[in-house]
Amino acid sequence: MTRFALTVEFDGRPFMGWQRQAHGPSVQQAIEDAAFAVTGERVAVHAAGRTDAGVHALAMRAHLDIAKPITPFRLMEALNARVRPNPVAILACEPVADDWHARFSCIGRRYVYRIVARRAQLALDAGRAWRIAPPLDAEAMHEAAQMLVGLHDFTTFRSVHCQSESAVKTLDRLDVVCTGDRLDVHAAARSFLHHQVRSMVGCLALVGQGRWRAQDLRDALEARDRAALGLNAPPDGLYFAEALYP
Amino acid sequence: MTRFALTVEFDGRPFMGWQRQAHGPSVQQAIEDAAFAVTGERVAVHAAGRTDAGVHALAMRAHLDIAKPITPFRLMEALNARVRPNPVAILACEPVADDWHARFSCIGRRYVYRIVARRAQLALDAGRAWRIAPPLDAEAMHEAAQMLVGLHDFTTFRSVHCQSESAVKTLDRLDVVCTGDRLDVHAAARSFLHHQVRSMVGCLALVGQGRWRAQDLRDALEARDRAALGLNAPPDGLYFAEALYP
Repeated sequence: MTRFALTVEFDGRPFMGWQRQAHGPSVQQAIEDAAFAVTGERVAVHAAGRTDAGVHALAMRAHLDIAKPITPFRLMEALNARVRPNPVAILACEPVADDWHARFSCIGRRYVYRIVARRAQLALDAGRAWRIAPPLDAEAMHEAAQMLVGLHDFTTFRSVHCQSESAVKTLDRLDVVCTGDRLDVHAAARSFLHHQVRSMVGCLALVGQGRWRAQDLRDALEARDRAALGLNAPPDGLYFAEALYP
Repeated sequence: MTRFALTVEFDGRPFMGWQRQAHGPSVQQAIEDAAFAVTGERVAVHAAGRTDAGVHALAMRAHLDIAKPITPFRLMEALNARVRPNPVAILACEPVADDWHARFSCIGRRYVYRIVARRAQLALDAGRAWRIAPPLDAEAMHEAAQMLVGLHDFTTFRSVHCQSESAVKTLDRLDVVCTGDRLDVHAAARSFLHHQVRSMVGCLALVGQGRWRAQDLRDALEARDRAALGLNAPPDGLYFAEALYP
């Protein structure tokens, strides 16, 4: 039995999310089915993060255990051949120690949230970014974001379905980077609560539109109450970008 | 009657190309139908370039004449509302002189061709870039590209369906810019022949893969014979990026 770590890119649009669901397609199922087609083995694929419906990944990390003797390169090529036509691509595959776990060994996660500030609908990036009508004050958003960085109780920014034991988390980075009409929000932490990035981005957008002052964001954080959330951003703009391991 | 200049973004995947066709959807028809829905007028929309099936635009320029009194802003908003669900977006709309012509007044055109050098299929950019298995020598491609810049007979790089009177054109720029596993080929000229960018990029890819030497590209150019073409790149990676006017 060999444990393989995968790096996976996927377009979240056709999926119910990463996790296997009874009622619709998932990225996990697409990869597990491909692995079965390659090896004849019914394996479980574990990921660093369980993304929601419509959320994308530039480089999700995952692992699976394979009994059949196969090189990492052959496994990657075969999984890519079998995972089609799903919009999923295995970018890298490497053998890891038996106790390496894509989720539990992960010590850092990074997401990017893409916003396009313009009036017209997105033709090329439909489903791939969040369009917001300008004006959008990126500097005000970046400045307000800094008050969320650090150790906080993020109850306001957490889905009611969140299964995490504690809402107290340390946010390492929340940067708003503006290039022309595009704003990328970079979020990094050891781990995130369910909907945390989308909830933070939604409230930052309110600040960017001038509908919220920075103090409103602070009040929302300090309320520790989901009802104080201003706005949950749509999944379209969210990308799982990186998972870090020791 | 007012002439309006439009700046249009579109995803080329569902279209037979820019130009209206009897046998399938076109970007031109999508905009003309939207204009009819807005104004009740059957108008012709003229573009700076007639892109092929599957070719995209970041900023195509086009024009149309409207009799109904309407501001540019209202026209843009109404066209965007009516052109849905086609993946077409009007990014700008401005009144222009009656003799301004999107195609005939245009004095410069710029295309970008996007390549991703990797083994795995494209999940996020399927239909939006050309994937080529590495290694791909971007420097060799850029260097070879420079021999195509300038005044040449581009018969080799021209579709047999090309309707241009002459194959002699001046290519102003052909740059290969590499960032990680992404290569963007920037092409600029007063005008291009049918399939010229895709044909040039296809041959540059052969150089990048080491299947062609720079001399093979020179021989192909000097042959002035379509049969000497090495490879025509797929439409997926091609974007009409800019049209210049006096």
